[in-house]
Amino acid sequence: MRLSDMGERAVVSELLKKFGIGDVDDCAYISVGGKILAITSDTVGVETHMVPGASYADFGWYACAVSMSDLASAGAKPVAIVSNFTLPPEFDLGDTLSIAEGVNDCARHFGCRVVGGDTKEGKSANVGITAIGIVDGRPMKRSDARVGDVVAITGEIGRAYSAILKIREGVWGKDEVYDVMRPMPRIYEGIKLAELAHACIDMSDGVYISAHYIADASGVGIEIYRDDIPLCDRIMKMCEKGRASIDDALAYGGDFELMITIPEDMVRDAMAVLDTLTVIGRVVDKNLGKVLIVDGEKRPLPLAGYEHFKHGDKGGCKR
Amino acid sequence: MRLSDMGERAVVSELLKKFGIGDVDDCAYISVGGKILAITSDTVGVETHMVPGASYADFGWYACAVSMSDLASAGAKPVAIVSNFTLPPEFDLGDTLSIAEGVNDCARHFGCRVVGGDTKEGKSANVGITAIGIVDGRPMKRSDARVGDVVAITGEIGRAYSAILKIREGVWGKDEVYDVMRPMPRIYEGIKLAELAHACIDMSDGVYISAHYIADASGVGIEIYRDDIPLCDRIMKMCEKGRASIDDALAYGGDFELMITIPEDMVRDAMAVLDTLTVIGRVVDKNLGKVLIVDGEKRPLPLAGYEHFKHGDKGGCKR
Repeated sequence: MRLSDMGERAVVSELLKKFGIGDVDDCAYISVGGKILAITSDTVGVETHMVPGASYADFGWYACAVSMSDLASAGAKPVAIVSNFTLPPEFDLGDTLSIAEGVNDCARHFGCRVVGGDTKEGKSANVGITAIGIVDGRPMKRSDARVGDVVAITGEIGRAYSAILKIREGVWGKDEVYDVMRPMPRIYEGIKLAELAHACIDMSDGVYISAHYIADASGVGIEIYRDDIPLCDRIMKMCEKGRASIDDALAYGGDFELMITIPEDMVRDAMAVLDTLTVIGRVVDKNLGKVLIVDGEKRPLPLAGYEHFKHGDKGGCKR
Repeated sequence: MRLSDMGERAVVSELLKKFGIGDVDDCAYISVGGKILAITSDTVGVETHMVPGASYADFGWYACAVSMSDLASAGAKPVAIVSNFTLPPEFDLGDTLSIAEGVNDCARHFGCRVVGGDTKEGKSANVGITAIGIVDGRPMKRSDARVGDVVAITGEIGRAYSAILKIREGVWGKDEVYDVMRPMPRIYEGIKLAELAHACIDMSDGVYISAHYIADASGVGIEIYRDDIPLCDRIMKMCEKGRASIDDALAYGGDFELMITIPEDMVRDAMAVLDTLTVIGRVVDKNLGKVLIVDGEKRPLPLAGYEHFKHGDKGGCKR
C-alpha cells in the first residue's frame, strides 16, 4: 500500500508498532544519571514549510522552533541541538549558512546550542532537528490527563492561520511571515507548568486534533468550549467579515501554544504564574466522548488537522 | 556559491563555524547528571546508499549501523535511537516497515532501542538516525592523538570495497550485499579501547582520509605503513589479479572498523583484550607531515575518500 493511501497518522502508528513504542508523546524519555532526558526530532522542508517572503534564516528558526516546542510540551529545559541538513548539490552556500544562522539564533534564544549534525546530499532541502532537554521532576505527557482536570491553553489562537490567509490573498508583510515562520515556543511556560499540570501537548497541529491526541493517549473524554478559546484580533476580524471560519482556524494550528490538563484546584496557581493561560474545556469520562460545545450546543469534536502524505493542496506551508 | 562547487567537507567546515563548533568529532558530547552523553546523527538515502540486491531491511540496518559506528568510535554504550523517515507519498508501506525492522534489529543487536522519531514527506526516501550513548569515563576523540602513539586498527580492510567491485562487475550474491549493507559496528571494541587508547575514529570514509582526520584534529603528523594494513582475502585476490588496487580499497572505506592511536606501551594490553587489533603506523611531529610508507618508500598520504556534493559517479553506494 502506498503511504499516500494511508496518511501520516496511520503510517506512524504502524511504525510505532514495529519499533515497539507504546506511549506516543511529543518527546521520548530516557533516564541518565538520575535525570530524565527528553528527546525530540522533527524534519521540515524548504518546499513544504517556507512561505513566500520568508528568508532562509526564518526557515532555520522555524526548523529549530518545531523541536523546541516539543520540549516545551514536556516541561523540559533545552540543552543541546543536533542539526541535520539534506541539500541538493545546486543549493547555495549563502542560503545554507542563513538556514544555519536561523537554527542557531533559535537554539541560543532558548539557552542551548547546536552541538553537532550531519550534511548530506538529497533531492530536496530538508532540515532535521533533534533537540535534547532535561526535565526537572516529572515530564508532562499527552497520556497523563485525568477525569476532573480542566483543559487550558497558553496564548491566543489563529495568528499563524490568519497570516497564511493573508499570504494566500496576496496582501501581507513581514509581520505575517514572522507569525508563521518565527514562532516562539513556550519553553518558560512549559517548565513552570510541569510543576502543576498533568497532560500537555503543543498545538502546532491544531487545537482540535491536539485535544483528540490528549483524550486518545489518556483514555479519557474531553469537552472543549469553543466560545472560550481566545482568538487573536486579526483572525477575529477576518471571521467577522466572513473571510475565515473559526473552525478552520482551530483546526489549522501553527501557533505553537501549549494545551494542558490541570486539576481544577491548581489552575488558579498556574494562572498566578502565567497570565497567558485560559481554561477552554474539561476532561471527562471516556464514555462521554470528545465533544465541542458551541453556543451551549454539543457537537462532535472535529477530527481535523494537517496530515502529511494525505493532502492535495499544502497551501504553501504546513503551518 | 553552489554546494557542488565546494564539496561536503568545505560546506561542513562553514557550517561548523556558523554554529561555533570548534572540536569536530564523530560524536557531540554533553554532560548530564555526572555522565557524558555521546550524540551522533547521520542521514542515509535509498538512492545513494542501497546496492542492487539489498532489501529495505538491509538498508534500515545500514542506516542505524552508521550512527552506531560513531558511538563505537567514542567508546560509548548505545542507549537510545531516534529514527527520522523522509518518504515520498508513493513509497510502499511494506517497504517502510522493512526499513524500520532493519533499524530495530540493529538497535537491539547493540542493546538499545528506538525511542522515537518523525515521519515526513519528501522527494527522496531518507532515513536519519540520531543515536545516543553513554561514555563510562573519557570519550575517545579524533583530536586526542599524541606524538609517540602508535596507530592501530580493528579487523580487516577491503570487505565493502571488494563487494562493491563484484556488484559493479555483475557477479555477486547475498554475501556481498551483507558486506556492504550489514556492517557490524565495533561497539564492544570501542568500549574496551576507551580505557587504553587516545584518539579514535571510525573508518567508514576510508583508511587514508581517517588518518588525515586524526592528524588534522590533533595537530600532529602521521605515518601509515601500507604493507602492514590487513586486507581481506577477497580484495587481496582481486589485487593480485589486477582487478583492484590496494590504494583504492584503502581510500574507499565502508568497513566500519576503528582506527585508534594508543601509547606504545598500552598496545600489548589492548591486543590481549582484542585479538583483532593491528598496528599500522605511528603518530609523529606535525612538521613530519602525513606520510604513507610503501616498500620502505615515503609518499604523501593520499587525501582520498568519499565526499558528498562533489562527485559525478556515486557507484551505486556511498560505501
